[in-house]
Amino acid sequence: MTDKQHLVLFMPSGKRGRFASGTPVLEAARSIGVYVESVCGGRGICGRCQVEVAEGSFAKHGITSSMENLSPSGAKEKRYDEKRGLKEGRRLSCSSTIEGDLVIDIPQDVQVNAQVVRKAADDRYIERNPAVHLCYVEVEQPDMHKPLGDLDHLLQAIEREWGFSNIKIDAHVLPKVQKILRTGNWSVTAAIHKDDEFDNPYLIDLSPGLKNEAYGIACDIGSTTIALHLSSLLSGATIASAGTSNPQIRFGEDLMSRVSYVMMNPDGREAMTIAVRKAIDALIGEVCETSGIDRHDILNAVFVGNPVMHHLFLGIDPTELGGAPFALAVSGAVHMKCRELDLTLNDGARTYILPCIAGHVGADAAAATLTEGPHRQESQMLLVDIGTNAEIVLGNSSRTVAASSPTGPAFEGAEISSGQRAAPGAIERVRIDPDTLEPTISVIGIDMWSNEPGFEEAAKKTGVTGICGSAIIEVMAEMFLTGITTEDGVIDGKMAEKSPRVFKNGRTWSYRLWQAEGGPDITVTQTDVRAIQLAKAALYAGVKLLMDKLEIEQVDCIKLAGAFGSFIDPKYALVLGLIPDCEVTNVKAVGNAAGTGAKMALLNRDYRREIEQTVRKIEKIETALEPKFQEHFVNAMAFPNKVDAFPKLEQTVKLPAKNDSDGSSADGTGGGRRRRRRPR
Amino acid sequence: MTDKQHLVLFMPSGKRGRFASGTPVLEAARSIGVYVESVCGGRGICGRCQVEVAEGSFAKHGITSSMENLSPSGAKEKRYDEKRGLKEGRRLSCSSTIEGDLVIDIPQDVQVNAQVVRKAADDRYIERNPAVHLCYVEVEQPDMHKPLGDLDHLLQAIEREWGFSNIKIDAHVLPKVQKILRTGNWSVTAAIHKDDEFDNPYLIDLSPGLKNEAYGIACDIGSTTIALHLSSLLSGATIASAGTSNPQIRFGEDLMSRVSYVMMNPDGREAMTIAVRKAIDALIGEVCETSGIDRHDILNAVFVGNPVMHHLFLGIDPTELGGAPFALAVSGAVHMKCRELDLTLNDGARTYILPCIAGHVGADAAAATLTEGPHRQESQMLLVDIGTNAEIVLGNSSRTVAASSPTGPAFEGAEISSGQRAAPGAIERVRIDPDTLEPTISVIGIDMWSNEPGFEEAAKKTGVTGICGSAIIEVMAEMFLTGITTEDGVIDGKMAEKSPRVFKNGRTWSYRLWQAEGGPDITVTQTDVRAIQLAKAALYAGVKLLMDKLEIEQVDCIKLAGAFGSFIDPKYALVLGLIPDCEVTNVKAVGNAAGTGAKMALLNRDYRREIEQTVRKIEKIETALEPKFQEHFVNAMAFPNKVDAFPKLEQTVKLPAKNDSDGSSADGTGGGRRRRRRPR
Repeated sequence: MTDKQHLVLFMPSGKRGRFASGTPVLEAARSIGVYVESVCGGRGICGRCQVEVAEGSFAKHGITSSMENLSPSGAKEKRYDEKRGLKEGRRLSCSSTIEGDLVIDIPQDVQVNAQVVRKAADDRYIERNPAVHLCYVEVEQPDMHKPLGDLDHLLQAIEREWGFSNIKIDAHVLPKVQKILRTGNWSVTAAIHKDDEFDNPYLIDLSPGLKNEAYGIACDIGSTTIALHLSSLLSGATIASAGTSNPQIRFGEDLMSRVSYVMMNPDGREAMTIAVRKAIDALIGEVCETSGIDRHDILNAVFVGNPVMHHLFLGIDPTELGGAPFALAVSGAVHMKCRELDLTLNDGARTYILPCIAGHVGADAAAATLTEGPHRQESQMLLVDIGTNAEIVLGNSSRTVAASSPTGPAFEGAEISSGQRAAPGAIERVRIDPDTLEPTISVIGIDMWSNEPGFEEAAKKTGVTGICGSAIIEVMAEMFLTGITTEDGVIDGKMAEKSPRVFKNGRTWSYRLWQAEGGPDITVTQTDVRAIQLAKAALYAGVKLLMDKLEIEQVDCIKLAGAFGSFIDPKYALVLGLIPDCEVTNVKAVGNAAGTGAKMALLNRDYRREIEQTVRKIEKIETALEPKFQEHFVNAMAFPNKVDAFPKLEQTVKLPAKNDSDGSSADGTGGGRRRRRRPR
Repeated sequence: MTDKQHLVLFMPSGKRGRFASGTPVLEAARSIGVYVESVCGGRGICGRCQVEVAEGSFAKHGITSSMENLSPSGAKEKRYDEKRGLKEGRRLSCSSTIEGDLVIDIPQDVQVNAQVVRKAADDRYIERNPAVHLCYVEVEQPDMHKPLGDLDHLLQAIEREWGFSNIKIDAHVLPKVQKILRTGNWSVTAAIHKDDEFDNPYLIDLSPGLKNEAYGIACDIGSTTIALHLSSLLSGATIASAGTSNPQIRFGEDLMSRVSYVMMNPDGREAMTIAVRKAIDALIGEVCETSGIDRHDILNAVFVGNPVMHHLFLGIDPTELGGAPFALAVSGAVHMKCRELDLTLNDGARTYILPCIAGHVGADAAAATLTEGPHRQESQMLLVDIGTNAEIVLGNSSRTVAASSPTGPAFEGAEISSGQRAAPGAIERVRIDPDTLEPTISVIGIDMWSNEPGFEEAAKKTGVTGICGSAIIEVMAEMFLTGITTEDGVIDGKMAEKSPRVFKNGRTWSYRLWQAEGGPDITVTQTDVRAIQLAKAALYAGVKLLMDKLEIEQVDCIKLAGAFGSFIDPKYALVLGLIPDCEVTNVKAVGNAAGTGAKMALLNRDYRREIEQTVRKIEKIETALEPKFQEHFVNAMAFPNKVDAFPKLEQTVKLPAKNDSDGSSADGTGGGRRRRRRPR
């Protein structure tokens, strides 16, 4: 028997090790890389290091775990329990020692403050190891015999107790050190920022006494929507979320029109930088207000966005991204002070911005990659974020490739005659009866399908004004499935015999989808079909190119990221040939995967290293340079006959209930404005 | 014979090594730690790496050096010579290779720009190794096949060619990178800041093409005078110097009154911080204007000052320094961006502030220690900077101790009835005839002694208004030497028989020194003598305490630093017993040694490490805690009879010519205002 006789398994990470009797659980966890928070450094006063013992026999691991295999509560723990309260079954890992085999749960809901956590439903478990660490220390007082400065005493204490060496200090902290030390009666909590192993640790904030909370924000800057989450850096809990339209929209709807705006207007770049920074600062105000948290307690921020958003946010002219060779000003991860980005947080708050993959595959695609993890698995994953450009990542743990495909704005409704953005009044779902060619629609802001009672009355109030992205896919697919459109994308004039909804429109034919009383005549024209053909051919050709690179014929799973991906029905995407053949159950909308990736990078700096390494390894394919792209593009113009593969789609598709899942957004803000306005 | 057959000696450092034929001189120098500047990285375009071959036989080293032992000029060197001109005998060390034994001189006057160096006379040779390095690189252009960002390409080039890794980038540089790379046609000069080995290197500035100049400032913030030097970081030359009164004087004459001002006024600290920063910024403007240099080409700054000046400049409340335990907010060296100190230099300019030794022994004393180097020699050196507090450092390479002694402001004239600051009209030198007790004086702003023709007329214009520090020492010493004052410091009423200049003044006697027509009656009272007795006793007691610590009876040399030290006559200091017994030839005024130390730390970061280590090792003695201080103080009250040691002083001292040395200031601004106003 060695002196390390007890087997301990830590959950949910599954890491395990053998430890000697008397080893504190906190120490054991850290020694094998299990991150357990502790602000007070084992003094039993912060309560952050709580764990639970899973009772029972874990045959697979050969462990019989029981509370008795842990030392009984000591004085420190009892004092904490009396003062702050410790939930039934919870123990302070700094104060309990291992006395037998154990299965230890690191709980995800360690709450030591009164703060309300408003939402946790969509929170995936993110193991924590943040770049900002709170370090409680007791500092030596000045001594005339050894006249070391107060700051120097403080830094010595941090180095001694927390192991940070060569600590630098933020300019704004320096003048406050003496007063804070005296206010805290020589006990203070230092916030230390250190991202990677080569970083100088920085003392970025200092508070008197025990400061038992620190927050961070994770933000996805989309061209259309900005989504922001406020998280506790100590518990990992999401405290609040908020979203808003990107105010840059007034300078240009899509990315390229914003780049043009910069090229045409001397102050254009600055105006857009100010606009997006202000919007983010306002969102920070919003999450702070809803959660009752002080902005100055936010110490870290992570941002992602496509290259143009990324550059504009950083104050970089995006002009180079507007033409070949699409040179990024910076592709690697960026570190900055939040203050340098005009964000009002703690003066010492630091920003981390994920790396960009290529000139049109941004930090948002990198973040989505981090979330979905094609590089962490063996099966071939296709990850697609569809916007004006589709950002495409394909691969697995052995090889990953990425490209962007110039789909243009058709999917977003911009080049479609009746297209509009997802907003009340927009048609969002469409079914067409194969016999009568009569449509059934559902509209944003109206609680029922058009064939249900009450729709007409509601439509009078809301109006039916156009077709948004998800419905464009559906109407195109339904037109094809019902034979209105042929395989090569022609609206078939013969169908006019079946229904007057198919009608001659100049030299070609159109399909009249809807006209509400007093509303516009919403039709689908031959030009609309062509626009979608071009867009989906571009997307498909990009995907095919990457499949060629990897020499694969089939992908194992498909993740549709972003707002558009969240709302289109995977079945219709397959019918239209937007995405390659795949088991329909393996096609998933993953919502704002970019926002989730940002949150992962916020809560755990190891994820930053992971995505930095992954991005370096990803092979970037520039579609414009690939001779086969054109060939794939032409081949993908037709609507592939997927009907055989999905026979049920031939029948009238059963209408889902209005409140049923319409693509699950992983974090509740995936759909931005649209999702939240829908009645529940 | 090894393949490293040639012996090369580098001057003035004296470092030597053996090298193989064909080794470039630049590479050889660097390999043995001889710093030779090179901005272009050996491309033969910056001209910074010039060296000279010392011809002749150097018997002591066994070297016969001749230009023939160096490779002949190649194409690169000839092109440089044609384009920029290379002085006779100069070679580019990057382009010349070692072909035989050599003595290589690293010249101190490598000038590749037109800039005028105004003063160099007092420049000591400072070997260079600055914290900011200019790195010329040629950067890979963007490539769609490998979409790395432009910044990432740049950082790769810097890492590859200059060996800096994990480079961070200043926020202000990021938005400019793409434009500068294109303006410079993918050739740029990066300024990299890296102070110590643990520091992350920072890209702090970027210029298109070859940027062949960078500047730094070194500044001594005295309570009375601020002195600033502008130096080339590439040649080490001092380009310009300037000095000004410390505008904080309006808040309080001496240090303690400024601390009181902070304690009494809520905005006092801020007002004084703003005042000193503005004054420094104005001085920067002054040196830039006189030298025609752009502020934005200044990349590094070093500051020194006593603890109160140090704290106020950094925006730290100095209140703690006003009472026991005299706690410094920070004693270690401080790094900051110049911008954070409200100085308008290059946006990326960095500040380094030397460490403080103790609560009353500041970064100025540390800088003076660096300059004079007691820790670099075996003989016992006493280094004294006299102000309201005397900062005293004593020791040698094996042990060094430091203390401050509360001399009070008497030496500066503040507690002396006719005392005044050094300014036109102030008496600065005094001789008293031992027979007649008649004085001869010299006055600031008047070109002749009072017994020379024209004095009276000049005195009418200038006025004779009071006695400044140096003259206070002289008049006290002369009064003692002529018997006006007794050994125990009593003005002897019996001397009234000899001259009416000794007169009854209340209960005690006074000496009437001077009264110019219409001017004040300038006298020395018994109270004045007592004040000087107290001040010099405090200084002497402090020194004695340090001598006790080191268990020495005698010091080998004495360095009097600072403005006061520069102007007092060492002989009189010895007569009065201000300083301990020492060979008079070994007592030297060293001028603004603090300013010189700041310049050393500016030009060579090794000096920063040296003084940081030295300060950590210096033993700090708090005089207030030492029981023997009081005893030494009481014993030092009397005027010791040094007359035997310096018999000539008994005679009327020969009057030095007015323009003769009056204490050599090491840098020309040592005397601040006073020195510069004196006609030459």
